[in-house]
Amino acid sequence: MADALGIALVGCGTVGSGVVKLLREQPERLTRRAGRVLELRRVVVQDKLKLRSVEVPLHLLTDDFQTVLTDPQIEVVCELMGGTTTAKARVLAALAAGKHVVTANKALLADAGPEIFEAARNANRTICFEAAVAGGVPIIRALAESLAANQVTAIQAILNGTSNFILTAMAERGIPYSDALAEAQRLGFAEADPTLDVDGSDAAHKLAILAQIAFGVAAKPHEIERVGIEHVEAIDIRFATELGYAIKLLAEAWVAGGHVALHVAPVMVRKTDMLAQVRGSFNAIQLVGDVVGETLFQGPGAGMMPTASSVVADLIDLAVGRAQKTFEVAKLWSKETRGFSIEPSEKVRSRFYLRLMVIDQPGSLADVCHALAEQGISISSLVQHEAPEGNSLAVPLVIMTHYAETGKFRAAVIAIDRLPAIREPAVSYSVDD
Amino acid sequence: MADALGIALVGCGTVGSGVVKLLREQPERLTRRAGRVLELRRVVVQDKLKLRSVEVPLHLLTDDFQTVLTDPQIEVVCELMGGTTTAKARVLAALAAGKHVVTANKALLADAGPEIFEAARNANRTICFEAAVAGGVPIIRALAESLAANQVTAIQAILNGTSNFILTAMAERGIPYSDALAEAQRLGFAEADPTLDVDGSDAAHKLAILAQIAFGVAAKPHEIERVGIEHVEAIDIRFATELGYAIKLLAEAWVAGGHVALHVAPVMVRKTDMLAQVRGSFNAIQLVGDVVGETLFQGPGAGMMPTASSVVADLIDLAVGRAQKTFEVAKLWSKETRGFSIEPSEKVRSRFYLRLMVIDQPGSLADVCHALAEQGISISSLVQHEAPEGNSLAVPLVIMTHYAETGKFRAAVIAIDRLPAIREPAVSYSVDD
Repeated sequence: MADALGIALVGCGTVGSGVVKLLREQPERLTRRAGRVLELRRVVVQDKLKLRSVEVPLHLLTDDFQTVLTDPQIEVVCELMGGTTTAKARVLAALAAGKHVVTANKALLADAGPEIFEAARNANRTICFEAAVAGGVPIIRALAESLAANQVTAIQAILNGTSNFILTAMAERGIPYSDALAEAQRLGFAEADPTLDVDGSDAAHKLAILAQIAFGVAAKPHEIERVGIEHVEAIDIRFATELGYAIKLLAEAWVAGGHVALHVAPVMVRKTDMLAQVRGSFNAIQLVGDVVGETLFQGPGAGMMPTASSVVADLIDLAVGRAQKTFEVAKLWSKETRGFSIEPSEKVRSRFYLRLMVIDQPGSLADVCHALAEQGISISSLVQHEAPEGNSLAVPLVIMTHYAETGKFRAAVIAIDRLPAIREPAVSYSVDD
Repeated sequence: MADALGIALVGCGTVGSGVVKLLREQPERLTRRAGRVLELRRVVVQDKLKLRSVEVPLHLLTDDFQTVLTDPQIEVVCELMGGTTTAKARVLAALAAGKHVVTANKALLADAGPEIFEAARNANRTICFEAAVAGGVPIIRALAESLAANQVTAIQAILNGTSNFILTAMAERGIPYSDALAEAQRLGFAEADPTLDVDGSDAAHKLAILAQIAFGVAAKPHEIERVGIEHVEAIDIRFATELGYAIKLLAEAWVAGGHVALHVAPVMVRKTDMLAQVRGSFNAIQLVGDVVGETLFQGPGAGMMPTASSVVADLIDLAVGRAQKTFEVAKLWSKETRGFSIEPSEKVRSRFYLRLMVIDQPGSLADVCHALAEQGISISSLVQHEAPEGNSLAVPLVIMTHYAETGKFRAAVIAIDRLPAIREPAVSYSVDD
């Protein structure tokens, strides 16, 4: 058997602890699958004395990252510390010292992909990142290897478990956003500060990575149009249900007119679509390939052991030698694979759900229809439930449009919001068919 | 760039035609992904003059398999002819001649896995078979690579698209089995002779392959307990719906008491389970790993291009050199990976659905309950809809049991079928929670 694969972890939070646990509890299994011993040689932490959820042998713990760089028997550095500043410096240092890198750091890849992948190529070393997108779901391998015969034409994905947990709770139990968020926090599905999860940033980071592999698009996260779930209201979930849809926070990228459109937003998805069935904190990615057609990959999107499963799969691939081969041909974030350009969001075509709060007065519906028609937008269906005779309060009017350019739809909404019969800003969602 | 990868196809039916089409239409893409040209050098067919759905250049067509063996530039033989006799001989001859083999032939692998994998190891060559299970769904890579850090503990899979199409049509439109089958045949989802699809044989072949990778079980297809969908009745689909379940033809394998239980059968699955949502001719595989938890992989299970997508993914993996690495460490169908033994079906524990046609007479329910109790089986729920007063016809009585050993449940059913109040043989299904 080949020599052991020497491994250092940098960071020992939730994911790092899971990796330590797995490496220590299943040495026999992992050696069999890898054809080599996976030998944990160093765990770099800020505070050696901090209590951790797994026992890390004291002689492995260090707060000195340099000891990793100077140990010639360490072949792989697992960057599991998060953040983008120190993490980036350490990844670059590890590559320069001739180490392969495994990382679960989606923000780092989305922000600095071109720089660190170029550094890896220069150092003739490999970067693996299965754990950076969708936790335990092996979506990176699916895109880069399993579907290699395809040009992916569309990605629709639930990439943020916290948001999906909250939307599921709101839809299934009719509770408001604030209660669902509090429950997610109590159960450990949301952080004390949930901003990056619920505002779509986390999903945008992951989408940037998927779009690079699938389309050669090097989108910076801030270039991805992004709407979170903080303002999703129970009334729209009810209307969605009535119309046969669910509202899901989707990260989407698809080929449209030679460009790639991409966004993160709460989207209405048909109830019969598999993505509508993805409940709780699960992640799921639907990929359409021009050869295979529609495929779907689902699993736990976060958590200690699911994420560790993906990190250790990367370690096994490095031990076996597969990862190096994939890295070499995939040429990610390189000039050679520069592919599609990004479709400006104004030009993206979609169907839309539009909910207005309208005073019931003569001509109000005509005004709304006129504003849509002015932008060339036609109406697919319309729901206004009967209000009591003589009601003077605003009542909801829900319109589903046919396909329209986002820019034109937005212009129509601006005009509609100015109409005298409209009492609250319009609420709208994209509708996927 | 490395030399071209020389390829021969053996067989040019539906799948072979798809592979030819893809190789000829996307040379640039495939070369980029493989790092080498994928060069089709021979297509071996029985009848060179037969009209095919894709154009095969005449100079590639041959009816002489020997020309493949003697061409030193052919590195890979794609066996896409089906059957087990000639196919096996040709696979063995190809390996002996130093060629790698890509095959979509599930029957061949399930029947002769140990022999041909041993031959491949002796010849230091690789066998790839992503297309043999679930068409376009990359489930072989998921098991062998992506989830390599896991011991899989359960597989629940929809592996036969024809059966799933028929069951979906029956459930969604209330049509009987014979009409759904006729429709499947008309639309090309079922063969003129659908026996191997609807009797569970096809799914059993695929399950045998998955069980080898996941559990090291070398089950011959005939060792897998198997029930088809030919006798599924509309009335049981209606009761399943009423109880919150769907009936799906599942191929299942799971670890139970140190053994592996496996079977193919129509099974009742909870409506909220993702597998219950898999519609039409799609395939889906739910895998539980001891590290990652529950994952699901879905996509088209058959068809020209989806299957070609998997065959060409294997060709790319061979060109890149990944497949050889995986083959070497996976040691499939070898003495070294012999794993779990098979749990005798009598010992398998399950919940059961039991439908009886009962004459409404005093003591009949007591007799049924007594027969179950005698085998230590307890009842979880019971449905008998009210019949008109004085009704003398048999009425359906549906019982859901708690967990019980299959052997004991079968003994109870034999006793129940002998009761005077029972007018038709009992109908039963396993129930998955």
